[in-house]
Amino acid sequence: MIFSSSLLENAVNEFAKLPGIGKKTALRLVLHLIKKDIAEVNNFSEAISRLREEIVFCKCCHNISDKELCKICASTSRKKNMICVVENVRDVIAIESTQQYNGLYHVLGGIISPLDGIGPEQLQIESLLSRIATEKNEEIIFALSPNIQGDTTIYYISKKLKGHAIKITTIARGIAFGGELEYADEMTLARSISNRIPVEHYVTNQ
Amino acid sequence: MIFSSSLLENAVNEFAKLPGIGKKTALRLVLHLIKKDIAEVNNFSEAISRLREEIVFCKCCHNISDKELCKICASTSRKKNMICVVENVRDVIAIESTQQYNGLYHVLGGIISPLDGIGPEQLQIESLLSRIATEKNEEIIFALSPNIQGDTTIYYISKKLKGHAIKITTIARGIAFGGELEYADEMTLARSISNRIPVEHYVTNQ
Repeated sequence: MIFSSSLLENAVNEFAKLPGIGKKTALRLVLHLIKKDIAEVNNFSEAISRLREEIVFCKCCHNISDKELCKICASTSRKKNMICVVENVRDVIAIESTQQYNGLYHVLGGIISPLDGIGPEQLQIESLLSRIATEKNEEIIFALSPNIQGDTTIYYISKKLKGHAIKITTIARGIAFGGELEYADEMTLARSISNRIPVEHYVTNQ
Repeated sequence: MIFSSSLLENAVNEFAKLPGIGKKTALRLVLHLIKKDIAEVNNFSEAISRLREEIVFCKCCHNISDKELCKICASTSRKKNMICVVENVRDVIAIESTQQYNGLYHVLGGIISPLDGIGPEQLQIESLLSRIATEKNEEIIFALSPNIQGDTTIYYISKKLKGHAIKITTIARGIAFGGELEYADEMTLARSISNRIPVEHYVTNQ
């Protein structure tokens, strides 16, 4: 692409650095911004630079936060006795959006994956263990990806927690709501049969 | 989506205002930016705010420009005797990227489309006519969309130019390079037959 304006070229190149955005999409976005009010565009650019400059990671749960302690850890209305262990910030947002969970979180920053060179020491596992040692948690809920790496991580942490009087659970795995039985893979189907739940329990959870 | 950080929420909302970008994509882009260096993110946000504040439209051809007169109009190495009339800035970039054209441009800012309420007075047609009246142009090349609106615009401007000793041309329409004959629509195929070109001419243009 050849541009007759270096301001335009610069902005397109910056947008094209974002994941999944090519030069043509970048140009479309930039031409959209040119048509907007200066104030609107300034809000956009300020939101981005402030985000990067001011955002921190919560010192307790490692979630993205505006302050040293994130809103969830600082909240007085949340149950302090349960920790939901998740892989990343996106998972916190996904679970929060369900409005079904009212406890605390712990963001590991990944899952154990030896093939990718990610061992327990690269993750926030030590800080999880020290939280459990000092806080009075009653339950740890693992909400990790349903794959070998997720299971390895659950196994590793559970082993470290042996001896603690703490309930360790994982989110239910099974056929997704709206999913079709015949398209489910064998492992999911097999697990959903062996982990079947009483219907009265299922109905009350609706 | 429920966010535990208002900085994050703000940035995601700003990204989600862009065309074709939903909340989930916005979140992915924002989380990508958080991982980048502060300097890189500042370059990004500065490129955007500078773009909107400093960009102008060339007073001669109405192309996007850094200065009052765009690079193309100000260039001394381009042929000043031909004007390529295009619909928008994107078309200038597309034609420039072919590196086949060395004349000037004129950006109409749209094409005549009564159904969308766009008449000649909403477009930069008056300024094109006054350019032609004062500059010593020898050729006007229409590079407009090959549809009824494009043809109407060509017809309207050509009529206004009656009496001027100026060559009026339009870019060739026909079967696209790499296109398959059997999938071409009838109108394109019919036109490409009636506007056939001598083979020796075609070969020398390669």
